[in-house]
Amino acid sequence: MAHLLSTSSSMKLSSGFKPYSMPFKQGSSAFSASFTLPASESPFRRLVSQGAKQQRNFTVQATTLPVSKEGPTQTSSGSHQMFKEPSKPQRVMVIGGDGYCGWATALHLSNKGYEVAIVDSLVRRLFDHQLGLDSLTPISSIHNRLRCWKSLTGKTIELYIGDVCDFEFLSETFKSFEPNAVVHFGEQRSAPYSMIDRSRAVFTQNNNVIGTLNVLFAIKEFSEQCHLVKLGTMGEYGTPNIDIEEGYITITHNGRTDTLPFPKQASSFYHLSKVHDSHNITFTCKAWGIRATDLNQGVVYGVRTDETEMHEELCNRFDYDGVFGTALNRFCVQAAVGHPLTVYGKGGQTRGYLDIRDTVQCVELAIANPANPGEFRVFNQFTEQFSVNELAALVTKAGENLGIDVQSISVPNPRVEAEEHYYNAKHTKLIELGLKPHLLSDSLLDSLLNFAIKYKDRVDTKQIMPSVSWRKIGAKPRTLAAE
Amino acid sequence: MAHLLSTSSSMKLSSGFKPYSMPFKQGSSAFSASFTLPASESPFRRLVSQGAKQQRNFTVQATTLPVSKEGPTQTSSGSHQMFKEPSKPQRVMVIGGDGYCGWATALHLSNKGYEVAIVDSLVRRLFDHQLGLDSLTPISSIHNRLRCWKSLTGKTIELYIGDVCDFEFLSETFKSFEPNAVVHFGEQRSAPYSMIDRSRAVFTQNNNVIGTLNVLFAIKEFSEQCHLVKLGTMGEYGTPNIDIEEGYITITHNGRTDTLPFPKQASSFYHLSKVHDSHNITFTCKAWGIRATDLNQGVVYGVRTDETEMHEELCNRFDYDGVFGTALNRFCVQAAVGHPLTVYGKGGQTRGYLDIRDTVQCVELAIANPANPGEFRVFNQFTEQFSVNELAALVTKAGENLGIDVQSISVPNPRVEAEEHYYNAKHTKLIELGLKPHLLSDSLLDSLLNFAIKYKDRVDTKQIMPSVSWRKIGAKPRTLAAE
Repeated sequence: MAHLLSTSSSMKLSSGFKPYSMPFKQGSSAFSASFTLPASESPFRRLVSQGAKQQRNFTVQATTLPVSKEGPTQTSSGSHQMFKEPSKPQRVMVIGGDGYCGWATALHLSNKGYEVAIVDSLVRRLFDHQLGLDSLTPISSIHNRLRCWKSLTGKTIELYIGDVCDFEFLSETFKSFEPNAVVHFGEQRSAPYSMIDRSRAVFTQNNNVIGTLNVLFAIKEFSEQCHLVKLGTMGEYGTPNIDIEEGYITITHNGRTDTLPFPKQASSFYHLSKVHDSHNITFTCKAWGIRATDLNQGVVYGVRTDETEMHEELCNRFDYDGVFGTALNRFCVQAAVGHPLTVYGKGGQTRGYLDIRDTVQCVELAIANPANPGEFRVFNQFTEQFSVNELAALVTKAGENLGIDVQSISVPNPRVEAEEHYYNAKHTKLIELGLKPHLLSDSLLDSLLNFAIKYKDRVDTKQIMPSVSWRKIGAKPRTLAAE
Repeated sequence: MAHLLSTSSSMKLSSGFKPYSMPFKQGSSAFSASFTLPASESPFRRLVSQGAKQQRNFTVQATTLPVSKEGPTQTSSGSHQMFKEPSKPQRVMVIGGDGYCGWATALHLSNKGYEVAIVDSLVRRLFDHQLGLDSLTPISSIHNRLRCWKSLTGKTIELYIGDVCDFEFLSETFKSFEPNAVVHFGEQRSAPYSMIDRSRAVFTQNNNVIGTLNVLFAIKEFSEQCHLVKLGTMGEYGTPNIDIEEGYITITHNGRTDTLPFPKQASSFYHLSKVHDSHNITFTCKAWGIRATDLNQGVVYGVRTDETEMHEELCNRFDYDGVFGTALNRFCVQAAVGHPLTVYGKGGQTRGYLDIRDTVQCVELAIANPANPGEFRVFNQFTEQFSVNELAALVTKAGENLGIDVQSISVPNPRVEAEEHYYNAKHTKLIELGLKPHLLSDSLLDSLLNFAIKYKDRVDTKQIMPSVSWRKIGAKPRTLAAE
């Protein structure tokens, strides 16, 4: 296999605003475990198109170096046997592949023999800088991550750095990579972030909705049979007083019956952006014959996957702050540093949860079993339901086993949500496809508390308390980090 | 009453892109029926803020001239008696008040004694230029329209020219006008327009969703008790095989019951943008206590209202083209010029319809009976249901009465939609508030065919056939007019 690492990166030119992907070719280079690779050792060669499309803003055309288009290697050894169909996708584009779920997924798919490309603007890293936050775990640059992966496994993950809201960039990535499946994690994914101020609310909806529209147009234009695997959220449904089905509900009303999209009651501008995406994708499946799977994911916890634990350079991010930290990750960090667990309000808020090892499994299952042309398929992607109080009790008990005294406090709920409610959401479709869940009771010690304790000296306790209020959001721009 | 016409207009400066409202003060001037008012006779005085907010882009602060804040005049004589509550709104901002429904509504509300301000970017007129289209009826500039209205009635309608997607502009209009109610027509409102190409699809969703988000933030920030009257569309519901309720449906499922938002199945990027708006507004009602009414309007027909027929300078637009023309308006023009009525596909597509005289009545009823704080109220705003074939038959019959031979042809359906389906949509809430419908059978001759015949020499028959295909939409920009 040729030692080839193809990367593309964006550049921002003083006379324009749009980032364009820009390819570099890196020759093969030995990878060492200590891994410091000065720029002078990676002889990037800029391939700048000087052609007809060079415009006022000095656009730079994206190209890339084609990799071998052979299928997944025959050594692939999944925990289930879904790889038999001749129609299985072989080239998977992971949009948002530098993020929490995206990085774990990209590595997992690469490990399973898929040809993988990561498309990412790296804006998630910018959010941390702007808000004064940081991952609990130290994470490497995407470039070093991919060099490490290549060195360890011999597998190349292509990299296209740019914004899917820039259709010219996205078009070039599609024409270059020719995906059979696109996994779309590339959205602003924090509810509190979307509720900081007006500009973040607008950014979230614009970024997520337009980015997804562009992905749909790119599939229609360049890769009509490509299967879209889109990350939705269980939060699209809200907390209705009836059982939540997987995407659709059959309703009998005034003597007539129809199966309709399950009603949506999202409760942040972020969650709403996913509702908008779902409606847009549904329409394009019907109108254009797009094949799509919407993974309505629950709250993800954990940091370890088989691939990320191969080397510390591959370590995934772990967010515990009030903006990006999901509830369970935050509780574990709080337990590790002796901070009381911060239960928002009454703590009866019940949601679906899953281990990040199941996220990567679910995405793989969706890809290996694609939706039909024109089908908008919805899976509820979680494995267990817990209330916030139940989570706090589980963390308290796990802490006891480690000799840690864990306290809980109720803090005023910064969100607007029911704090005591019925919740029963179906989640059988991924199980039927072969999902083998990791259960929280087993994961708490080996994939959560242990990481929190290992890195507890990196915890910034100022970041733990909620800093964003659903009711107090205003029109004026807000700089959280300076408060 | 002071003779005062306050207008604001946008200016685009070479070094920046954002339009800012810019106030002019016009002294009193006599209005003549023949009405040509050269610029030299209107001594506009520019009030340009030189203050702290003057930025790199040379921003110009919007201000306006306050008008009397007395309530509607006591001579108001609506066809119903809804003006008794002490809480009735008195100052109504009509966003999109230069458009088809908006113009008729602004005049109607002004006539009924409300203090009215029009907020409009005039982009609808730009669309006509870009696509090579024109209203069947000759329409005056917004400035001349308002001068004429002032001259005829003594009533001032304030004008703020700018884009609600520009929050700085919108903030200034709110601070200046201090509305009690906002009627939001200010969206790209054509399904075919949203399906021309990717850039129009993205424009439509961005413009409509972000504009509405900005309106919600402006209400929260500047006018918390302001009632939002938002124009939705019956197209949000699609064509389910069950009765369509007004916004919500009570569902019993697995032994439990809840009342949930009616499932949405929109079938163009335009209709989807309204679905997104509805979800966003629902959330802000719950989270912030916004009071909102969503008017899910059917297909509007007709051109004449009591106010627009006072003077030809006030004449409303009448769209018959394949992009902006609604079905019934188009059929009447086709009948007038001897073009066969173009039925898309089988013609069984059934929708709700209403006369534009009922649009203005419904908006007035919604304003006079505001939603409660935190309430997201949905009215289905139409008066009668027809299939396309039924419309064609009605126009054919009306033509016979005028001695016109009307033919119908089926043309390939450019849309993706069911052509034979169940359709039964509830529409009782506005009737309960006092709506007195104008029925199509009465309106066909006096408000539709007569206009089509009067202006038939202005018909451009090249614009009649559908030019936009739901299935053929592509990523490349398309210039319809040059085809």
